Amino acid sequence: MNKEITTEILEEWLENVRPYAYDGQVADYIPALSRQNPEELAVAIHYIDGSSIHAGEIEATFTLQSITKVISLALALMDNGEDYVFDHVGMEPTGDPFHSIYRLEQLPSKPLNPMINAGALSVTHMIHGDTPDEKVGRLLSFVHEMTDDHTIGYNEEVAASEFETAFLNRSLLFYMKQHQIVTGSVEETLDAYTKQCAIEVNVPQLARIGALFANEGRDLDSGRQIIPKHFARICKTFMVTCGMYDASGSFAIKVGMPAKSGVSGSVVASLNGFGGIAVYGPSLDEKGNSVVGLRLLELLSNRYDLSIF
Amino acid sequence: MNKEITTEILEEWLENVRPYAYDGQVADYIPALSRQNPEELAVAIHYIDGSSIHAGEIEATFTLQSITKVISLALALMDNGEDYVFDHVGMEPTGDPFHSIYRLEQLPSKPLNPMINAGALSVTHMIHGDTPDEKVGRLLSFVHEMTDDHTIGYNEEVAASEFETAFLNRSLLFYMKQHQIVTGSVEETLDAYTKQCAIEVNVPQLARIGALFANEGRDLDSGRQIIPKHFARICKTFMVTCGMYDASGSFAIKVGMPAKSGVSGSVVASLNGFGGIAVYGPSLDEKGNSVVGLRLLELLSNRYDLSIF
Amino acid sequence: MNKEITTEILEEWLENVRPYAYDGQVADYIPALSRQNPEELAVAIHYIDGSSIHAGEIEATFTLQSITKVISLALALMDNGEDYVFDHVGMEPTGDPFHSIYRLEQLPSKPLNPMINAGALSVTHMIHGDTPDEKVGRLLSFVHEMTDDHTIGYNEEVAASEFETAFLNRSLLFYMKQHQIVTGSVEETLDAYTKQCAIEVNVPQLARIGALFANEGRDLDSGRQIIPKHFARICKTFMVTCGMYDASGSFAIKVGMPAKSGVSGSVVASLNGFGGIAVYGPSLDEKGNSVVGLRLLELLSNRYDLSIF
Amino acid sequence: MNKEITTEILEEWLENVRPYAYDGQVADYIPALSRQNPEELAVAIHYIDGSSIHAGEIEATFTLQSITKVISLALALMDNGEDYVFDHVGMEPTGDPFHSIYRLEQLPSKPLNPMINAGALSVTHMIHGDTPDEKVGRLLSFVHEMTDDHTIGYNEEVAASEFETAFLNRSLLFYMKQHQIVTGSVEETLDAYTKQCAIEVNVPQLARIGALFANEGRDLDSGRQIIPKHFARICKTFMVTCGMYDASGSFAIKVGMPAKSGVSGSVVASLNGFGGIAVYGPSLDEKGNSVVGLRLLELLSNRYDLSIF
Repeated sequence: MNKEITTEILEEWLENVRPYAYDGQVADYIPALSRQNPEELAVAIHYIDGSSIHAGEIEATFTLQSITKVISLALALMDNGEDYVFDHVGMEPTGDPFHSIYRLEQLPSKPLNPMINAGALSVTHMIHGDTPDEKVGRLLSFVHEMTDDHTIGYNEEVAASEFETAFLNRSLLFYMKQHQIVTGSVEETLDAYTKQCAIEVNVPQLARIGALFANEGRDLDSGRQIIPKHFARICKTFMVTCGMYDASGSFAIKVGMPAKSGVSGSVVASLNGFGGIAVYGPSLDEKGNSVVGLRLLELLSNRYDLSIF
Repeated sequence: MNKEITTEILEEWLENVRPYAYDGQVADYIPALSRQNPEELAVAIHYIDGSSIHAGEIEATFTLQSITKVISLALALMDNGEDYVFDHVGMEPTGDPFHSIYRLEQLPSKPLNPMINAGALSVTHMIHGDTPDEKVGRLLSFVHEMTDDHTIGYNEEVAASEFETAFLNRSLLFYMKQHQIVTGSVEETLDAYTKQCAIEVNVPQLARIGALFANEGRDLDSGRQIIPKHFARICKTFMVTCGMYDASGSFAIKVGMPAKSGVSGSVVASLNGFGGIAVYGPSLDEKGNSVVGLRLLELLSNRYDLSIF
Repeated sequence: MNKEITTEILEEWLENVRPYAYDGQVADYIPALSRQNPEELAVAIHYIDGSSIHAGEIEATFTLQSITKVISLALALMDNGEDYVFDHVGMEPTGDPFHSIYRLEQLPSKPLNPMINAGALSVTHMIHGDTPDEKVGRLLSFVHEMTDDHTIGYNEEVAASEFETAFLNRSLLFYMKQHQIVTGSVEETLDAYTKQCAIEVNVPQLARIGALFANEGRDLDSGRQIIPKHFARICKTFMVTCGMYDASGSFAIKVGMPAKSGVSGSVVASLNGFGGIAVYGPSLDEKGNSVVGLRLLELLSNRYDLSIF
Repeated sequence: MNKEITTEILEEWLENVRPYAYDGQVADYIPALSRQNPEELAVAIHYIDGSSIHAGEIEATFTLQSITKVISLALALMDNGEDYVFDHVGMEPTGDPFHSIYRLEQLPSKPLNPMINAGALSVTHMIHGDTPDEKVGRLLSFVHEMTDDHTIGYNEEVAASEFETAFLNRSLLFYMKQHQIVTGSVEETLDAYTKQCAIEVNVPQLARIGALFANEGRDLDSGRQIIPKHFARICKTFMVTCGMYDASGSFAIKVGMPAKSGVSGSVVASLNGFGGIAVYGPSLDEKGNSVVGLRLLELLSNRYDLSIF
């Protein structure tokens, strides 16, 4: 395990990438996200041995957004098994934007993978629970287990705001309902999904989640198997093939880490034998990835040879 | 005006095409439609001079379904003017199935024409009226005027059944709401649309509607201008370029009449200087057009040289 | 037959639309076309009774380009019959640009109609003749018959220049060869096609061609049937549904004439019971249609009520 | 390094998967490939320490087909540098079949990645050399260096046969020529490409190539850097995201090895710190991957925990 990265190095590098904070745009499709401060930057590494380092505004919290697609996938796999999950959502990367709908019109009408919105919505639909709140409650408990922090909740304002304006996700859900990929109430699935996306953490917590995936799904302290190794691996595979929206291919080439980003400007990477890395910087590039996050992970990867390829 | 077609000829020809009644399938996506009897056939011609002939089960009523797309377009043009309407829906035929969504993903996100579902939903949305029932009430009054029959209503069972299962139309509506093509309540627009589709007539009434379009929008008896000539012409143009789903091109070649079909198995044709022709035969081909309807219109067109081309 | 349009009216209207000559762009993809003078405008009407009027630079010649798609279709129908032709090319309008390839990837791999390039190339391939020159020779003879002018040939410079740069058409041809829509030498079919597109006429000749289609395929003077009525009708149908590239739908609404345009800036319209109208004005809009041509036809249609709808 | 796999184990496992040899179909689009014997199976492992084991018909030779896409990419990167290469071909996986053309119609017209045919053709075009034979000669020299075997050549019959029937690849090339992604002679680029695809090896040679990529591009014996480490990594990244046609995503989930397959029925995998694995079994599944190859790699991955995720 490479542990030569120190707090000082993280702090220095965070300053180096700070100028990029204004190269992109803070997400503006909901007011709560548009109020994020592009200068608020933070990074944390949680090593697989349980130790951790960080730099920047580590108290800053942010909603996980698309990063929760990986977490809900893990829970859905544990709830339903691999066969059921992949009967309803595919395994192939697409090269399309995350909100794209046209592929659903190609038979069989099944979302190509669990990282695009259509697939992620169908995954949330699969999580066990009779009500949206029960699903979200189970998802939060799962996050509490992974982080060993039972205070984590979701941001109600963000959830409510996204729920209100999620017309495209409703379109995807109704399309999938027509083709029996999802059943039941579209509004309830969307309710669960928007609350899921609004789960709020800081970078140390997120880095620990990344480390748990890197640790084959075992708790960093107790060694308890929280996610079966095989399912943790499936999640990391999707992080490589489609974790960074339609920039996943170039991220794999340039950085080479299993990683997932969210439109709040956060990114988590998960490296076997190393640990988890979380970056927060709300300014996004045109694909929806954190500009500072990409830059920092690329620097770390190149300097410390962290690519898995 | 060619008036050599007699009742006897219509009766004879209806018998000739009767064997085709089992070549297709009755629409089965809602119970009320699936109960239609494929042997129930009827045809009517309403001449532009006000006279009419018919054959078959002319008392049989059926819901107009997609045929109402032409009627709602006429009303939306009268309510909003040409510029407003075509700012929200295009004029181009597509070659795609009526329920297709993928074109909406190509910028600008505007339905290609008012005859595909996406376009027809946006047209219904434009009809003036504060509530779905007010919109539908205005549409019914418009139909009453056109047919001079104030008893025409909509089939509540069919409307309710379609409303319940219209997942694809909800998907289209939410997609368009995301792109500001429609605003307000999706459920309300869909409510109006499904009631519109369930308007119930028989072939003599439908033939009169066709004749009114052929008569430049003027009432067949009083000569009163019910639809401005220019708007009647726009409607007939769409009937040629995209009135028969994705078989519009071949219908134009083989039959050459401005016509619109609905999945209940009805077709209306509108021929300037001649009048309107309506056919009912619920068995559908794979494109959603009445098998008997197509066959009968093709025979009439070839025998009496009715193609406009 | 409406014959109230006089030479003086044509001359006056041509002056009225002259300011639009600079609203578009002359085609620039081959040098020979880019040298066209946007101020060179001409219009001719050939009435169905054989008389004709014209205005502007009627001596100016231009290559027919896509307008030949209608002529080659007529000859291919006469050579092969309707069934054979439509086994290899469809009848549906598309809403796509003329050079589009993606639809060929949707099974069955058959061009949607004979007016897009893929379809037109397959039509040229069907024209009888052992060599490109034999095909083109037969096509020229056919044009000579239609115009009663045996001096018409093709512009060798334009043909050679287009042949050299027709990479997209080669792409379409090889794609169709893979799917057995065309067979034999791609270069030979392209040779015939580029020579076909380079056939050179002036507006009086082109108006006469339009009139012949309007006259049910019969020669304007002798009454001899040059094109079977049914095939002439098929051609006029395609002129309505897909004659003006992906602006065919809006042209049908606004003008309502069966018409075909070419990127040299020429347009021909064909109106049953009236005759043919040809306009030349090389400045093109973004869809590839003559700006002056569209404007003039729209004025004529509105003023003299020439829409067929 | 895990070296517990023995020759006996390989032999036993090859027998275990032998029954799958008839589950797929031998490629039949060219005679030379269709003559392959589905029962001819072979596997080899070349460890990173230079040792190797194998089982089955290791003398059997086969053409590399799409596997050469990885090799030509490495050479094109060395010839042109990373920036130039990725100005002409993208980095994103697609989810489309390898022969797909429709994405090229989406701007910018650039192949999405170097593993689909469009991208691979543009990569071959980039390899330095004034003539096809010079390009192929340089590619063969590169293969000789990687395998330390200077007898390797290409199968002239296969190359000639593919050249003759490669209509789809010509279509892709002309489409790209239109958009300046490739320049010069399409026939010459295709000549080079078909000869490249026909390079003929056996599994021990192919496993050594896989091992060289695993060894950061260094020769297995001398340690000489044959491919710069960074370029070897780029190639392995594409093997993960798009190496197994439109089954790359599911292969990453189920097997988790950087790998590339070819329609001759061969697959090569490259595992850092381990070595290269090559399998040959000409029976293909519907995606074009060797049935036996997939099965054997999946067994090895699961049993010896070889997934990189």
